[in-house]
Amino acid sequence: MRAIHVGLLGLGTVGSGVIKIIEDHQDNLMHQVGCPIKVKKILVQDTEKHRQIYVDKALLTTDVNEVIQDPEIDVVIEVMGGVEETRIHLLNALKAKKHIVTANKDLMAVYGSELLSVATENGCDLFYEASVAGGIPILRSLVDGLASDRITKMMGIVNGTTNFILTKMSKYGSAYKEVLKEAQDLGYAEADPTADVEGLDAARKMAILARLGFSMNVDLEDVNVKGISQVTDDDISYSKRLGYTMKLIGIAQSEHGKVEVSVEPTLLPDYHPLASVNNEYNAVYVYGEAVGETMFYGPGAGSLPTATAVVSDLVAVMKNMRLEVNGRSAFAPQYEKQLKSAQDIYAQHFLRIHVQDQVGAFAKITSLFSDKGVSFEKILQLPLKNSNLAEIVIVTHKASNHDFEEILQKLHDLEVVSELKSTYRVEGNGAQ
Amino acid sequence: MRAIHVGLLGLGTVGSGVIKIIEDHQDNLMHQVGCPIKVKKILVQDTEKHRQIYVDKALLTTDVNEVIQDPEIDVVIEVMGGVEETRIHLLNALKAKKHIVTANKDLMAVYGSELLSVATENGCDLFYEASVAGGIPILRSLVDGLASDRITKMMGIVNGTTNFILTKMSKYGSAYKEVLKEAQDLGYAEADPTADVEGLDAARKMAILARLGFSMNVDLEDVNVKGISQVTDDDISYSKRLGYTMKLIGIAQSEHGKVEVSVEPTLLPDYHPLASVNNEYNAVYVYGEAVGETMFYGPGAGSLPTATAVVSDLVAVMKNMRLEVNGRSAFAPQYEKQLKSAQDIYAQHFLRIHVQDQVGAFAKITSLFSDKGVSFEKILQLPLKNSNLAEIVIVTHKASNHDFEEILQKLHDLEVVSELKSTYRVEGNGAQ
Repeated sequence: MRAIHVGLLGLGTVGSGVIKIIEDHQDNLMHQVGCPIKVKKILVQDTEKHRQIYVDKALLTTDVNEVIQDPEIDVVIEVMGGVEETRIHLLNALKAKKHIVTANKDLMAVYGSELLSVATENGCDLFYEASVAGGIPILRSLVDGLASDRITKMMGIVNGTTNFILTKMSKYGSAYKEVLKEAQDLGYAEADPTADVEGLDAARKMAILARLGFSMNVDLEDVNVKGISQVTDDDISYSKRLGYTMKLIGIAQSEHGKVEVSVEPTLLPDYHPLASVNNEYNAVYVYGEAVGETMFYGPGAGSLPTATAVVSDLVAVMKNMRLEVNGRSAFAPQYEKQLKSAQDIYAQHFLRIHVQDQVGAFAKITSLFSDKGVSFEKILQLPLKNSNLAEIVIVTHKASNHDFEEILQKLHDLEVVSELKSTYRVEGNGAQ
Repeated sequence: MRAIHVGLLGLGTVGSGVIKIIEDHQDNLMHQVGCPIKVKKILVQDTEKHRQIYVDKALLTTDVNEVIQDPEIDVVIEVMGGVEETRIHLLNALKAKKHIVTANKDLMAVYGSELLSVATENGCDLFYEASVAGGIPILRSLVDGLASDRITKMMGIVNGTTNFILTKMSKYGSAYKEVLKEAQDLGYAEADPTADVEGLDAARKMAILARLGFSMNVDLEDVNVKGISQVTDDDISYSKRLGYTMKLIGIAQSEHGKVEVSVEPTLLPDYHPLASVNNEYNAVYVYGEAVGETMFYGPGAGSLPTATAVVSDLVAVMKNMRLEVNGRSAFAPQYEKQLKSAQDIYAQHFLRIHVQDQVGAFAKITSLFSDKGVSFEKILQLPLKNSNLAEIVIVTHKASNHDFEEILQKLHDLEVVSELKSTYRVEGNGAQ
């Protein structure tokens, strides 16, 4: 019985986890796929570096071709990260007829369609479950588990770093910068946290989800992105008073064939299942026309959780090898891409403003909304300490983004309005 | 391009949903499987009965052989329910080389292993995603998504009726009988609610989950079952005071190769993700050695949600037909069944007793626990109105079921103990 030979590109956090799972669960894996799994070569930057995990030094190489051109290697596992150079490696690996398993969302968000079609041309599998929401088998659930349904909406907490920060801000009333520093000290946030806190990482995952869920070639540039760096402790505390929890939510929504994909700080009612997903955990809420509401929850990152998804993909490749049916996983979008405009995107909005505390001020504000046919679901007005201003917090009923932007412009020009403090999208009313 | 022909056994709630999804999502399904799906024959009890859904009368038959022996039919979808007679129909269908999709947990819990091996012998697929937790793709997630991990524990709310009843009791402080009647009026509970409220339905699903999750031939008789009919509003209100939510929880746990499977009313800390799964919703919490905690949430029943799972299975059968790889879905347990004894099962316990309000009473009680090395996590003592009794509520640290039973016996014999009111398992401390 010939072993399946695996080559690894990268031996960082996820790569070490992959090695550990293949070793620890060898019996279990062999029962499923009928033969042993052997790691044959590992691409690293430095073969002499000290590592947390024991690996036979003879396996290490700094030459990518020793992995992707090795005729004995069946499957290449890419856990090195990076985009442009990595793309070239994977294209070469596919041309050398290697099946690919990757955890690389940056790469898949940008070059996913190209890589998948080259994989199909070469009769190879290309799986990427680990690229979205780490250990949660969400891609497979969309493709297989909900195959018969029409997905209309996905809402996800798909970035652990920002969820950790917002959870702490919400729990302890701390300021953003303080919690960011704590997250960096704990290793939850990187020294340069931009990709996480500005929503780019989440946007990549939402592009991948939207593509699969709506069977449409959504690009990374189609995602409207707003990060959490402007969220203040005041915003969180006022939204709490109105019964909301602040989360960085990725939304992908389809109506009448048009889609919107966005990532932004969003208020969810406290009773919404996503509102209680805390710390570094991820969850994806999926609405299907027939199934209704489902949710998939779990660790969104980390060495072993992510490695679980990678090795489960490896098992899928190996099952396909045994059945001789590799290379059928191509993504062929069923629909032409059509994006919603700001006129088509409807949502509830949270607005916090400082207003001169004088007779008729509130009436002037409300008339701007009623002129556009936008009504209020919740209003909170409080005097601001040590000033002649009032704090007004409004949650509207559904309004188009376009109308809401126009109202904001007019509010800005009103003399009684001292400052527009913040606006947030509100989602998930009426769940469960 | 030849259509795939489908025969239905049954046209009740789920069957009607299947017809509707196949009709409504025909384009979408055709994109995935490359050919149309045609329902050719439907077994019903009465061809003249008025139905909610329009079906061509020519499709209806009261003769099962017109479905399972029709040479043109490729796939038989079983949504008629029942066990003994249905088993015979499905065995005959498999011998006639029909692939099977079933939503029948009663059948799969008892005859699953037999049916799966007959399916393999005949080169046929047999899928049963809809049999556990309706619209949640939990079986596929266990088999494929978490393929590389070692599952150590599954905790599930897998019965919608009992979850509806406990949610209402908890929310409104109502008595069990009252809420049961409401559930029956709303159609959430059947006229004879025994299978639901006594935990049998949940036990069937837990047997199926345990078999897949632990790769072991767990039988329905191996499940320890206790229903919710003895749960009182007092139990719920006292557990609330201590920060717990009462749920009917199915637990399947594996340690050192030995497993326990049980269904019983269980107290979860309010912050546990399963505690906020309300009404008729289902959720399954899965612990994997590598992945950690994951949860799958969604509608556990209902026409369209369950039909989604059925038709997704149909899609899987059809993809296999196209690849000519049917009949590989057999369940071959990797491990010999080994069950835990009461000495091996450790849990926290909630105990509520009425005690004579006299000096030294509490000391007598606590010494019974400390003799067995069992300590307390929480204690609540309150005087009982209009009596000389005190209400004592205790939550222990982990103790074996065997030791706890011995303590209960001794408590019962203590003179100061007026009544043992109730005991419940406590789970999920320290989650997230």
